[in-house]
Amino acid sequence: MSEHPEQPPFRFPVATRYAGMASSPLKDIFALAARTDVVSFAGGIPDPELFALEDVRDCYDWVLSHQGRRALQYGVSEGEAELREQAALRVARHLPTSAEQIRITSGSQEALFVIAEALLEPGDVVLVESPTYLAAVQAFAVHGARVIGVDTDDGGVLPDALDRAIRTHHPKLVYLIPTFQNPTGRTMDLDRRRAVAAVLERTATVLVEDDPYGDLRFSGEPCPPIASLGAMSAQTLLLHSMSKLMSPGVRIGWIRGEGAVLGTLAVAKAAISMQSSVVDQLTVARYLASKDLDAHVARVCGVYRERRDAMATAIAPVLPAGAHVTRPEGGMFLWASLGHGIDAQAMLAHAVAAGVAYLPGWSFYAEDPDRSTMRLSYVTHAPAVIADAVGRLGEVIATHAERADGVSARV
Amino acid sequence: MSEHPEQPPFRFPVATRYAGMASSPLKDIFALAARTDVVSFAGGIPDPELFALEDVRDCYDWVLSHQGRRALQYGVSEGEAELREQAALRVARHLPTSAEQIRITSGSQEALFVIAEALLEPGDVVLVESPTYLAAVQAFAVHGARVIGVDTDDGGVLPDALDRAIRTHHPKLVYLIPTFQNPTGRTMDLDRRRAVAAVLERTATVLVEDDPYGDLRFSGEPCPPIASLGAMSAQTLLLHSMSKLMSPGVRIGWIRGEGAVLGTLAVAKAAISMQSSVVDQLTVARYLASKDLDAHVARVCGVYRERRDAMATAIAPVLPAGAHVTRPEGGMFLWASLGHGIDAQAMLAHAVAAGVAYLPGWSFYAEDPDRSTMRLSYVTHAPAVIADAVGRLGEVIATHAERADGVSARV
Repeated sequence: MSEHPEQPPFRFPVATRYAGMASSPLKDIFALAARTDVVSFAGGIPDPELFALEDVRDCYDWVLSHQGRRALQYGVSEGEAELREQAALRVARHLPTSAEQIRITSGSQEALFVIAEALLEPGDVVLVESPTYLAAVQAFAVHGARVIGVDTDDGGVLPDALDRAIRTHHPKLVYLIPTFQNPTGRTMDLDRRRAVAAVLERTATVLVEDDPYGDLRFSGEPCPPIASLGAMSAQTLLLHSMSKLMSPGVRIGWIRGEGAVLGTLAVAKAAISMQSSVVDQLTVARYLASKDLDAHVARVCGVYRERRDAMATAIAPVLPAGAHVTRPEGGMFLWASLGHGIDAQAMLAHAVAAGVAYLPGWSFYAEDPDRSTMRLSYVTHAPAVIADAVGRLGEVIATHAERADGVSARV
Repeated sequence: MSEHPEQPPFRFPVATRYAGMASSPLKDIFALAARTDVVSFAGGIPDPELFALEDVRDCYDWVLSHQGRRALQYGVSEGEAELREQAALRVARHLPTSAEQIRITSGSQEALFVIAEALLEPGDVVLVESPTYLAAVQAFAVHGARVIGVDTDDGGVLPDALDRAIRTHHPKLVYLIPTFQNPTGRTMDLDRRRAVAAVLERTATVLVEDDPYGDLRFSGEPCPPIASLGAMSAQTLLLHSMSKLMSPGVRIGWIRGEGAVLGTLAVAKAAISMQSSVVDQLTVARYLASKDLDAHVARVCGVYRERRDAMATAIAPVLPAGAHVTRPEGGMFLWASLGHGIDAQAMLAHAVAAGVAYLPGWSFYAEDPDRSTMRLSYVTHAPAVIADAVGRLGEVIATHAERADGVSARV
């Protein structure tokens, strides 16, 4: 017997909500996107060539030259006054909004987490579009929420299905991405928005309206946020982000709300991270005040439109019969449902071997996934690269469709 | 009867953990610190005149000139490689550490929240020094933890009391600030650290070692972190922050850990805020790589030492008989226990009326507060301002001491 028996390595306890999660879907996307031998359509990663780098550098320089000591000092949890003012001006294009109604967050992910932290109890139900943004589902789920998907069509969530789900499940909140939805690229038209608002108002249900893509419109008419319809503004938290418009690296977004919940949101934000980077906040405020974000976004949209067209043109002929693909009027994503019993997750390894990556769609479903779905971001690569890579993806799809059809023919 | 009875305003649901919290202690500190008619000793707010503004501006400029497109793009949840490398070099002064063992957070507050999120279940016990940092208690409490204070003396937490509390309460983790503790300014010497490490090792208890102030030493010998003693590194998460050394506004800190828990921390960080500002991360990395942080900190320490001396000299004669005040060898805070039945919270309004603010000590206790305590930060103001304001505070204290003694004499 040894006096010093070998100790097993110390094992940290892990909270149940993170048990078995050695990685996260988003982390894996970013890892895939970093591979240089693969054309990745997996992430919603802006093309860095399109960043307004000179303008952003100007603004950092201006802030550090004119507001330097303040930028390096502590700020307030609600966010810096200048940025809240600029954010309010943008929201007010659709919905009367004052700076006091804005809470600054470190990107939309933190906004979703702050809202979940402020509102959700374990066991609460959150209704979401089926499919929906997977990292939002995670922010709700780690707060113990039961996340339930509501049926959708190409016009977004179905009002009748939403009404039934609310009456059945009594959700604490409904989470929707009405414009250029992630992952489908779908947009709810005004009639659909009105019908959804009517359901939410009648049932006094909280809406979390996530709108990171709305300004990236290539065609069609802009639609007002659901928050601006009827009396919805009082029961909606509306989320915007600078990530898709200016830069994801600066991590600045905001929540627009009304009433007492604003106090709770600020307290939750303080508990989570005290405040967002003051340097970044003041820089984004300066950018919005002194540069022409709309002109920049128009330029980006012109490029994205070409890329959407390139992908839509390339993918149509390589899809198997009966497959469905969306053709969004803006945003970053196409969504394809291949059918034929194809498992897009299983197919991914072959696609990556062929030098193409996409995001398998199953992870966007809170339940009952269509495993033949995939999300394709068209924003990162030039049209020629897209056409070439989609061609290679088509060969992989064709092989899997034949294989799957062969299997089902034998059943 | 009206066809349209007036609707009551919509009320958002609020999670129980935030119910009744219209504000937070830290938010109120920052509000008080913003008043120009009050000399505030309330916050641990660095003097902005001491910021190395030119150096920081240089680094933002360098990053945006040399790594601009990367700085504006998405990064990874673990943190940017250069910053993790620089952080590891600093930690390795006391404890062998690789970049892989570093997780970047948006300041120490987010680090505490990430750890709580990754490890704590509702009902878990967290042991803390009594008194301790109030925002850490909040990060644990909103995760449903029962936070229990352990007795301390002027040398820090008492090993026997810690041992007893661990055996009684079976805590999920112990949270300590061994150097220039917040709020007391106390430091555990090496013998005390060894005794505490022995207790934690014997009971296989997780330690969260928070060290935002350790580099701000004015006198005495540096002490190694508890994480570096015996086999503690495997069961410790060690927290550092750039807030007190370089700038609180850039919101950059890190966690040093070992083993599988690092994966869980990255997943929790991704769920909370995806990643910290890439611009800020690369800038801090550049600052650490190209500027002399130690020389900057030495300059700051020289100024803080004078201010500590000014406050210690001014406060000694104005304290009532039997009061106790700490004289820390570094950090930002003095801690006074006035006794005489004084309620420092009730006294604050009179102090503010006299143009002086401090932080009442009761909020730093998880339970059984000594309500006669106050925390005084000496870092924000010049010695003459400190001497003058402490003089006025002395008059307020004298009035309250007489009043309290009169009351107890009549009982």
